[in-house]
Amino acid sequence: MVGLGRWSYTIAEAIQSSPLLRLVTCFTRTPAKREEFSQKFGCGQEESYEAVLRNPAVEAVVLVTPNNTHAEQAMQAAAHGKHIRVDKPVATTIADARSMISACEKAGVVLSVAAPYRFTRGMRFFRKMVDEGALGVLAMAEANYSNDRGYFYTPKDWQWYNSGSPGGPLIQVAVHQIDSLYYLFGPVRRVSARFSKVMTKSEIPDVCVLWLEFESGLLGTLGTSFVSPTTKKGRFTLFLNAYGSEANLYHDRWDGLFVLRRGADNKERVPLEEYAGSGHIQANLEDFARAVREGRPPEVGGPEGLHVLAIIRAAMRSAETGQPVDVAEVLAE
Amino acid sequence: MVGLGRWSYTIAEAIQSSPLLRLVTCFTRTPAKREEFSQKFGCGQEESYEAVLRNPAVEAVVLVTPNNTHAEQAMQAAAHGKHIRVDKPVATTIADARSMISACEKAGVVLSVAAPYRFTRGMRFFRKMVDEGALGVLAMAEANYSNDRGYFYTPKDWQWYNSGSPGGPLIQVAVHQIDSLYYLFGPVRRVSARFSKVMTKSEIPDVCVLWLEFESGLLGTLGTSFVSPTTKKGRFTLFLNAYGSEANLYHDRWDGLFVLRRGADNKERVPLEEYAGSGHIQANLEDFARAVREGRPPEVGGPEGLHVLAIIRAAMRSAETGQPVDVAEVLAE
Repeated sequence: MVGLGRWSYTIAEAIQSSPLLRLVTCFTRTPAKREEFSQKFGCGQEESYEAVLRNPAVEAVVLVTPNNTHAEQAMQAAAHGKHIRVDKPVATTIADARSMISACEKAGVVLSVAAPYRFTRGMRFFRKMVDEGALGVLAMAEANYSNDRGYFYTPKDWQWYNSGSPGGPLIQVAVHQIDSLYYLFGPVRRVSARFSKVMTKSEIPDVCVLWLEFESGLLGTLGTSFVSPTTKKGRFTLFLNAYGSEANLYHDRWDGLFVLRRGADNKERVPLEEYAGSGHIQANLEDFARAVREGRPPEVGGPEGLHVLAIIRAAMRSAETGQPVDVAEVLAE
Repeated sequence: MVGLGRWSYTIAEAIQSSPLLRLVTCFTRTPAKREEFSQKFGCGQEESYEAVLRNPAVEAVVLVTPNNTHAEQAMQAAAHGKHIRVDKPVATTIADARSMISACEKAGVVLSVAAPYRFTRGMRFFRKMVDEGALGVLAMAEANYSNDRGYFYTPKDWQWYNSGSPGGPLIQVAVHQIDSLYYLFGPVRRVSARFSKVMTKSEIPDVCVLWLEFESGLLGTLGTSFVSPTTKKGRFTLFLNAYGSEANLYHDRWDGLFVLRRGADNKERVPLEEYAGSGHIQANLEDFARAVREGRPPEVGGPEGLHVLAIIRAAMRSAETGQPVDVAEVLAE
């Protein structure tokens, strides 16, 4: 485990809950943080990233580091023959993502990009409904991911800056919804987006709205805010809906799944028990572990992470130029 | 009552439930339809629109006629000194809307445009929350209105054609959400939109997605589909959400109002009893009646109807040109 912020604790718990994974050692720059993490999880600790990469017991690195450091760290790991799991997004630039993909291919190591939301039972069920044609002909998709993280960043955090977190809530949280939309409906052809800055003092925007056109022709909307409330129980806004000719499916991370079928009596709740705690994160990590063992690509690897990043980059360019932007145009550069 | 399709029956019931309104007479081209309506509601009937306008007992006409006939009919009514209530949208073109407004001003008659959704208790409560600052600084708004009306139109219906129903679900149903967004958050500066045609054979599109920037700077998304299910109970997708720094408010026509406040235990249901049946339609009509009696503009008159139409027209132009379009640009022509 490399990078020991609060999110790495959630991932470490998921690793320890899995029979397929073992936490060997850890590294972050601050010794006290290494000590704390090492104590809590009973794993080793290293004094440098280089030492992690030289540790023969380490098969793979899990990078929970600033977005704009993923590329260099992944390339170093690949050079040492270590498999790699980076937190989302894969990187902050298309060029960085391409370098990572290429380095991992050459080294023959697996590159996995965090995409836990698509591993929730709700999203798995959603995809099954779509694949089985239960929604009929798809008409529209819509999603929102809004929370209050924007208030917590200070100039000490890499998320404060455009260099680390370009696009703000779009690349930090809505990235999950973009991956899920891609998972459910395939690649995106074109987006039109607009950003705003309503509250916070950091470099990043607070809000982004966009429409998307998938390569299939399906249309969708997406909204994300970094300055909207979270409850004491940690609940915020996180939903994804799809509208079809036969049924609409509404998924809310907290309220659950609802289906509105043509001619049914009412909109109905789908009885579906979600993974407790970080079960979806564990499932995502186990896909990575299996990919390593089976010598196959993970479900969300470099190419998938690159497409999601390209959608985000296209949205950012659209907001900048005031024009809809083709994802292919961003990828062609 | 002029134009006696199924919607005029709902309006007639609202008129008959109100102590401020009286249904005097009716007209539509087909004699059997006039007879049926007249029998059902115990009102008179006329053999021509001209006869309605010459009837001295008629103070105001309620036009439930094709969108693209509103302008001519309204101008005729104004010439006869009758007050006018048109169904939404005010008209299909900016020029028509302007002609109506000008004719009504000159004749000194009230022009009211149907906007019943903003008269629901939910939308009234929503506006109160926004006005009182309960949401804090507004970050984002989002809305959807999707139903299955697209399947019901045949070449015999004016809604089948671009001339009568340009923009399809955008002008026919999402118009209600556009009015509500305008009611809650003020005028719109710019929109970017995209249409698609996934199922139906008519001239009109099936689906529209867009983002909006309000003059205040607030951003929003809107989606609308004409080919998505309705339940036996007549329930479809109709929601409007707003995200603020202190609270988010979620309004669903059927599920009710929910608020997520910063630091609250949970998202909570707002106990609010909605008008039974067509109470919001009656409230909208009574505002018209009071405007006539008090010699004041109605809450939604020509200028408001024109702004809503201009947003729709800007969205249509955006979908056509592939560029975001300023509402002012559409209005300037």
